[in-house]
Amino acid sequence: METDSKQFEHEPHRDDAYELDRKAVAAILDAVERGDREALVALMEPLHAADIADLLEQIDADDRDALIQLYGPEFDGDILSELDEGVREDVIEILNPQVLAEAVRELESDDVVDLLEDLEEPQQEAILGALEDADRVAVEQALAYPEGSAGRLMQREVVMAPEHWTVGDAIDYLRNAEELPEQFYHVFLVDPRLHPVGSVTLGRLMSSRRDVPLKDITEEVFQVIPVDQDEEDVAYAFNQYHLISAPVVDGEGRLIGQITIDDAMTVLDEEHEEDILRMAGVAEDSSLSDTIFEAVQGRATWLFVNLLTAILASLVIDYFSATIDQMVALAVLMPIVASMGGNAGTQTMTVTVRAIATRDLTSQNALRVLWREISVGALNGLLFGVTMALVAAFWFGVPMLGAVIGVAMLLTLVAAALGGFGIPMLLDRIGIDPALASGPFVTTVTDVVGFFLFLGLAGWILL
Amino acid sequence: METDSKQFEHEPHRDDAYELDRKAVAAILDAVERGDREALVALMEPLHAADIADLLEQIDADDRDALIQLYGPEFDGDILSELDEGVREDVIEILNPQVLAEAVRELESDDVVDLLEDLEEPQQEAILGALEDADRVAVEQALAYPEGSAGRLMQREVVMAPEHWTVGDAIDYLRNAEELPEQFYHVFLVDPRLHPVGSVTLGRLMSSRRDVPLKDITEEVFQVIPVDQDEEDVAYAFNQYHLISAPVVDGEGRLIGQITIDDAMTVLDEEHEEDILRMAGVAEDSSLSDTIFEAVQGRATWLFVNLLTAILASLVIDYFSATIDQMVALAVLMPIVASMGGNAGTQTMTVTVRAIATRDLTSQNALRVLWREISVGALNGLLFGVTMALVAAFWFGVPMLGAVIGVAMLLTLVAAALGGFGIPMLLDRIGIDPALASGPFVTTVTDVVGFFLFLGLAGWILL
Repeated sequence: METDSKQFEHEPHRDDAYELDRKAVAAILDAVERGDREALVALMEPLHAADIADLLEQIDADDRDALIQLYGPEFDGDILSELDEGVREDVIEILNPQVLAEAVRELESDDVVDLLEDLEEPQQEAILGALEDADRVAVEQALAYPEGSAGRLMQREVVMAPEHWTVGDAIDYLRNAEELPEQFYHVFLVDPRLHPVGSVTLGRLMSSRRDVPLKDITEEVFQVIPVDQDEEDVAYAFNQYHLISAPVVDGEGRLIGQITIDDAMTVLDEEHEEDILRMAGVAEDSSLSDTIFEAVQGRATWLFVNLLTAILASLVIDYFSATIDQMVALAVLMPIVASMGGNAGTQTMTVTVRAIATRDLTSQNALRVLWREISVGALNGLLFGVTMALVAAFWFGVPMLGAVIGVAMLLTLVAAALGGFGIPMLLDRIGIDPALASGPFVTTVTDVVGFFLFLGLAGWILL
Repeated sequence: METDSKQFEHEPHRDDAYELDRKAVAAILDAVERGDREALVALMEPLHAADIADLLEQIDADDRDALIQLYGPEFDGDILSELDEGVREDVIEILNPQVLAEAVRELESDDVVDLLEDLEEPQQEAILGALEDADRVAVEQALAYPEGSAGRLMQREVVMAPEHWTVGDAIDYLRNAEELPEQFYHVFLVDPRLHPVGSVTLGRLMSSRRDVPLKDITEEVFQVIPVDQDEEDVAYAFNQYHLISAPVVDGEGRLIGQITIDDAMTVLDEEHEEDILRMAGVAEDSSLSDTIFEAVQGRATWLFVNLLTAILASLVIDYFSATIDQMVALAVLMPIVASMGGNAGTQTMTVTVRAIATRDLTSQNALRVLWREISVGALNGLLFGVTMALVAAFWFGVPMLGAVIGVAMLLTLVAAALGGFGIPMLLDRIGIDPALASGPFVTTVTDVVGFFLFLGLAGWILL
């Protein structure tokens, strides 16, 4: 297997680049302890809001409290946007209401929405109250869209142009506009009913002659996002079609905002994080700054499901307890069969869950993939079945015990392939997230089948 | 646990949006079967290259072959870029050399690099040979940078401006430039030694007065990427600092290219995919289109490691075989302890591995996180230990057996927290990727500790 050595190589620079400098953190905490506001402000000045947020998450609650008190009016709204939910609530509690109001007023309306949606009612109202009227209306309108929809992600500020305009028209318009959005990369062409019909990049606009119609230099790839689309699908579209910004339309197809790739990237990152946590049975909204109680809650659900499935597997063992009583070697070997089955099942399940999520697994290729998984299970089952048969035969000096564990291993690994493929497919079909729920079912199948086959075959053949 | 019902909700639209339309696929395959080139071209015309690539991955090899033959000269270079490695090699084999040359010549040089780096030597040379001289030199220069570095990701085409220019200077330059890059969002300001010193968005440029110095409207956040930086760090920087494009510099700090967010997003997506596969013990470069043999290889490594650790755990059981022989209930219950330990360990491990990857876990908060994990392990251990103690006591009618499994469960879950936290931290410290290698070690610890504690306590107390 030639990939082995490569697999174990650790990427260079990984741990150093962009990690908060330990000395800088120490200096900041020292300034906080000395109550030296001037030094603190000077030390924090070069840091990006995202790095300050990381710092606040990593230090303990008392230091955080002291730092924020001392930093006072310098506190920037962007830091709030970058903070983890749990820490963010704490910080909002601590912040002087006037500083909070000031910080929030600096933010773009889509950032305020992002900040508000995770907060409790009273904190939401405190922040809404701090906004100017126009901003508050914009934020409230965005909050009217369902959580996790394109409507929550979009910014309302767009640059649009009638579809019959030329490059010169667009440039003159842009040069004379009173106010343009903070962030925009495309001019969206709209028809008279305000339906977006194409987009032109600013770069293309700059490099084209004034008399060229905008229609002639639109982007080849043009995706319109419905306002109620799920943010996960939005992120998928950006990733699949390499979009930079895309127009968002209402139910009548009218342009009402835009989504830019940086927001889509944040969604993609969050979704991945959630998938990894879910597959390990950790609540998807967990973070390092959760309290002990929150963390216990976030993991107990899966442990409880696992307890039930483990008890189910134990019932199978109990059914064969007379067999084990006659040959204790079975008790020694049986966890090996179950463990191999569980791992092989998890491998197939992970591949299947990912392929469903990335839309690579469809009715076109489902049967082919299933067949491949069964073949892989059978081949690995053969490989490890034979290996384990030899180990067991020599270990206990009973050749037939080797044969039994070999056959049990082969069949369990085939069952693992069936379960690892079939269970996520079935869950997806009935509308349950396969990333979340497949794990316990797959390991139940492999445990039950593994114990049943091994102990059953042993009872039948050996005793 | 109020999140439960929410956790099980499946996101709306998930399966429908952006999935290849089944009818369209059927129509395309039908056209291929009928050998109807005109119909095929008409049906493929509205599809994005990424969707065509997905289609080619999903249909079987014979259909793919026939489709490509029929589609012939329409075959676009972008489709190659979007294909999975394995399928891409097959497609390059099938393509008429002239069509291949034509397809590759359309691509941007960074896409050619991306395409070449996964190919075998003879295919590489066929493609390099098809390029025009200037493009070939550019591609060869990019390939001289290490795989997975910023140098491989960047495009060489940038728009730069002397730092003393005004908005008017920049606009005149852009309006009169012979050729501008296909994709650019910023003008990078450089000093006389070509060191980048700031960036101006095109939007900001468009909306500023002609006499404003560029220096006055530079972006607040400005990150320079060293050409040898790992692509994972590049993706991290784009995500952390919400960059849209960033200048790449050589060893002397001179501007030599730029990286744009869409490339960073692709890297982020690939890295996540690899992490998920690694954590499940599947080779990180696996794909649905791998052959059976490749898939067997990609999973056997981890299964082999798992076999060794499972045998190790069995040796512990073997050590206590006399105890089991006296009380077969122990064999029935022992997998429950190991299973709960394995799951709790995996939870802690996943949280730790992720926190290392996202640079959220540092020396600042390591002790605090460890303490939290131990507390969580102890609390869940208490919860499930007591539950299981009651179950076991009633099941077998032996109250002390309940006490033994309860205590063993509690201690195993604490050990799982220690192992799940300590092992990835240790692996990371000694330079081994914790996402890849933690799993087997953690479950070995929990299996060995679980079996040892349960059977040891039972032998000591019950017999």
